[in-house]
Amino acid sequence: MKKTSIRLSDGRELIYFGAIPERPGDYPDRRRLPGVEVLSQQRYDQLLGEWVVIASHRQDRTFRPADDQCPLCPSTADSLTEIPAPCYDVVVFENRFPSLGAQPAQPVAAGGASGSAAGGAYGSAAGGAYGSAAGGGSALLVGRPAAGRCEVICFSQDHNASFADLTPAHAEIVVAAWIDRSTELSLLAGVEQVFCFENRGRDIGATLSHPHGQIYAYPYVTPRTARMLAMSTAYRQRTGLNLADELLAAERSDGPRIVAASQHWTAFVPHAARWPYEVHLYPNRRVPDLAALSGAAKNEFCELYLDLLGRFDRLFDTPAPYISGWHQAPVRQGRNELALHLELFTTRRAPGKLKYLAGSESGMGAFLNDVGPETAAERLRQLG
Amino acid sequence: MKKTSIRLSDGRELIYFGAIPERPGDYPDRRRLPGVEVLSQQRYDQLLGEWVVIASHRQDRTFRPADDQCPLCPSTADSLTEIPAPCYDVVVFENRFPSLGAQPAQPVAAGGASGSAAGGAYGSAAGGAYGSAAGGGSALLVGRPAAGRCEVICFSQDHNASFADLTPAHAEIVVAAWIDRSTELSLLAGVEQVFCFENRGRDIGATLSHPHGQIYAYPYVTPRTARMLAMSTAYRQRTGLNLADELLAAERSDGPRIVAASQHWTAFVPHAARWPYEVHLYPNRRVPDLAALSGAAKNEFCELYLDLLGRFDRLFDTPAPYISGWHQAPVRQGRNELALHLELFTTRRAPGKLKYLAGSESGMGAFLNDVGPETAAERLRQLG
Repeated sequence: MKKTSIRLSDGRELIYFGAIPERPGDYPDRRRLPGVEVLSQQRYDQLLGEWVVIASHRQDRTFRPADDQCPLCPSTADSLTEIPAPCYDVVVFENRFPSLGAQPAQPVAAGGASGSAAGGAYGSAAGGAYGSAAGGGSALLVGRPAAGRCEVICFSQDHNASFADLTPAHAEIVVAAWIDRSTELSLLAGVEQVFCFENRGRDIGATLSHPHGQIYAYPYVTPRTARMLAMSTAYRQRTGLNLADELLAAERSDGPRIVAASQHWTAFVPHAARWPYEVHLYPNRRVPDLAALSGAAKNEFCELYLDLLGRFDRLFDTPAPYISGWHQAPVRQGRNELALHLELFTTRRAPGKLKYLAGSESGMGAFLNDVGPETAAERLRQLG
Repeated sequence: MKKTSIRLSDGRELIYFGAIPERPGDYPDRRRLPGVEVLSQQRYDQLLGEWVVIASHRQDRTFRPADDQCPLCPSTADSLTEIPAPCYDVVVFENRFPSLGAQPAQPVAAGGASGSAAGGAYGSAAGGAYGSAAGGGSALLVGRPAAGRCEVICFSQDHNASFADLTPAHAEIVVAAWIDRSTELSLLAGVEQVFCFENRGRDIGATLSHPHGQIYAYPYVTPRTARMLAMSTAYRQRTGLNLADELLAAERSDGPRIVAASQHWTAFVPHAARWPYEVHLYPNRRVPDLAALSGAAKNEFCELYLDLLGRFDRLFDTPAPYISGWHQAPVRQGRNELALHLELFTTRRAPGKLKYLAGSESGMGAFLNDVGPETAAERLRQLG
């Protein structure tokens, strides 16, 4: 996979994957952007035992620009965008409005200098930039600058395409980019978990329509992953078995929620699905993260995932808004227990009707799903 | 507080609070509604250790009716609604499209018959109605009929009012109804926690604009409460102290996130707030639930809460959508640790801009908040 890295005018890194302009240096960023200032803090919610990120510098981020002002299209003579080159296959760059990364962007060079710098910021600056507004006098009011990094990944230069429109060969470039970024970001000091995801559709909160996803490198193990790890560890202690393996076997054996199964992958609506249409996609052989997938599994993933996205597009009168994300084991925890898998779901429950996270879900974490998982799986099978 | 209970034509209970029609029997439900069939299941998500409710019978529930077809307005000669009487102060009735309660509605008579019936359904029917689609052969695919009950509470007969428009005396009737329902529903067998909440505004997912809230009696301790209880218990073991008491003291001592403080209550934006504008309202003297509040605390709550809702209405160009909910200790757990409090928040982060629970929040449980808690508190103080 060809890969070339440049710097944007404000110092952020941008990486071309796949077909790269022959001489990327011929296409410098001709904008004069002010430096990115990131003031994110991570604060600990003592009642829930979870970190929350406060990113108050992001309120002015780009919000639903006109199509001819899309910052993710290639640059032209008339329009200077985030991507200086006139064409690209897949491109990744540091988010100009990142939620994470309370220090100037760090170079990505594996380990080494960038790692140490991030580590220092993470450790010693905890009090300084933070001040009395956040820390106060109580040991219970815990906060510190939020390390980490937020990247944007553009799946295609075609503004009107969607991921489902990609060819399998093009999707393989995206997979290669996800793996590259997961591996590189895991090496940054202070990074505990990498999450590659896509928010598709205005109804899901996407503020740019150009086909793109995001890659978050968190400075902590996320709350959902922490719970999965706690449950998996307890199950191992109780039974000696891996919980994800047993759940996958149970779904395969039970049957009615299977959406698609291939040599290397199984796609199913989980027994206790939270969302109207929700599919979990597991490799049949458990691995901790994307980098551990075999070449054959990666290739087969592309075919299967494009197929699944097509089914989601056909669920309703218009393509379904969706969230799709890769659950990978954290950098330093649970690597023998947690199973790489993708979770894909839509918040649309019927044409024109969304599932909202209202009082029960947002207030109590108690999910109510109006679509039976077996019914959802049957519909998704029929749309194949 | 005057209270009169009647039955609607399909057997559901309806209760008038406050000024009651002199002879409620003169206003029977003249509709001929088919019986309510509730097929809710609760299924256990093994990976997260959380129950999820599958309520597939709810897809056809009332969705944004025209104002002259509002089912929550009093009935008139021309329009038969859910409320048979021609006027009311506050009314509570069993939801016609409930998420919970897998058996015909149970009478509310304290303890006794209704309790036993619900208990039986909860225990023994676990396999029956559920069938192979849900249980399968694996012990990991755990599900059973979801006991419990869902009620609707209409805050006012005035279709165009909002909670913030109520007089303190009227709000006291609402508080009395919340307490009555929390107490009665806690007595139903199988009910583990009662949640009184309001979803206000279309942006939050409310499908009816008439001022109303909901009361959910869950057959399990909700995931969020379970985590609060686990954290509080661990804190007690570590320090001998109550976590909620210490957090309230820390917020009061720190200062910059306090929004309002009175003799009996403290309102603050929590240090690790998840939502753009979020206020937690705690009684200064910890109690487990609404029923344990003193008369003076109840009265003072009404004044303070109406004041807070007014501030939320003035945050933006139009009244903010919000979710407001009472966190009460579960029926049988944590009654000496968990602290009654109200959590009020809006998902709007700026005029015309919503905070969405996208990939990071919905996929990973990792909240990102764009508005600093100290900034939010300062704005809310200024709007007082």
